[in-house]
This record gives sequence, C-alpha cells and structure tokens, in this order.
Amino acid sequence: MDQSNPKSQMCPKYEAAISILGKRWTGLIIRVLLGGPVRFKDVREIVPQMSDKMLSERLKELEEEGIIERKVYPETPVRIEYQLTQKGTDLRPVIESIEEWSHKWM
Amino acid sequence: MDQSNPKSQMCPKYEAAISILGKRWTGLIIRVLLGGPVRFKDVREIVPQMSDKMLSERLKELEEEGIIERKVYPETPVRIEYQLTQKGTDLRPVIESIEEWSHKWM
Repeated sequence: MDQSNPKSQMCPKYEAAISILGKRWTGLIIRVLLGGPVRFKDVREIVPQMSDKMLSERLKELEEEGIIERKVYPETPVRIEYQLTQKGTDLRPVIESIEEWSHKWM
Repeated sequence: MDQSNPKSQMCPKYEAAISILGKRWTGLIIRVLLGGPVRFKDVREIVPQMSDKMLSERLKELEEEGIIERKVYPETPVRIEYQLTQKGTDLRPVIESIEEWSHKWM
C-alpha cells in the first residue's frame, strides 16, 4: 500500500465497510431497524424467506460490529428488542444512497 | 419474496448494487474516475499493488455494467481513456457516504 497517496488509503476501510454491508440480508435488516427498535419476529415477518438461523447469525454479527444492540426487558414473558447504535444509525445515508441508485439504475 | 411488503422488495436491487460495489478495487476505481477521465496507467499509479490483469477485468466489468465507458482517441499513439457514464457518476453519493461512514467508524 502506497501510504504517500491518500487515494490508496481509501481501500481497507471502505472494503471493511462494504464487506459488512455486502452480506446477504444485512442491508435489509439495517433498513428495518432504521424505522426503530424491533423484535426478532418483526424482522422475520418482513423477510419471511430468511431462516431463523440466518437472521440470528446476521443479528449476532451486527451486534459484534457494534452496529446494533440487543436489549432485554425483564418482563413476563421476557421482551428482547434490537436497535441501532449510533454507528448503525449513521449508516442511514449509506443505505439510502445505495437504494436510490439501485432503484434508478438496476 | 413477499411482494405485498415494500420493504422486502428492497433486496434484489440493493443486493445487485452491493455485489458490484463490493468487488475488490471497484470502489477505488470509481473513486478515481469521479475525478474525471483517466488512462489505464493513471489508475495503475494510484493503486500500484493491483495487477494489470485485475485492473483490466474490473474495468471490463464496469463497462459491461454501463458504469464506465472506454473512449478511444485515434491519435498517434492511440489514446484510450475511461470515464464514468451518468450511471457511474450517480454513484458519487454512494461512494462518499461509505467513505464517510468507514472513516468515522472502522
């Protein structure tokens, strides 16, 4: 990597970001969460063709990335909600610009 | 796919877009081209670790996607430049929002 050239430094961070956003369903899960906190089943209803296992994996990955957080409310029955962190909320212009471009051009 | 739910329709187009943007070097090549038409060697200089073969492949893919166009100027020696189409130029907010987010959070 040529550190003297600022353009060449775009790569690793850009590619790290895109590798998160590029995983199947991730964009859609973030899209849903941009609407506010949701429960597991709320996401499942919006994307019925995604398996529980797949959704669990994606949510776990996004939690590990610090993009979403899992909140447990000690009610009966216990209520678990997923919501975006600030890092996740900041993805709004990314998701929206990709959506806008893809709807215009794809 | 649940066609009755507008959110679930985000998927195919978003994912088609992200599959283009997610390829290694593609974001950087578009970034460089956002600065104006360039010759093959200009891109090579900015990303010296990318092989000629890889760059040729990426440029060909982007041309096939209608994101860039290859212009041949019949000079001596012949001059070949790559430039963004309107579809490609419209990627500016996408690339910029990913860059901004990744520099803040990655």
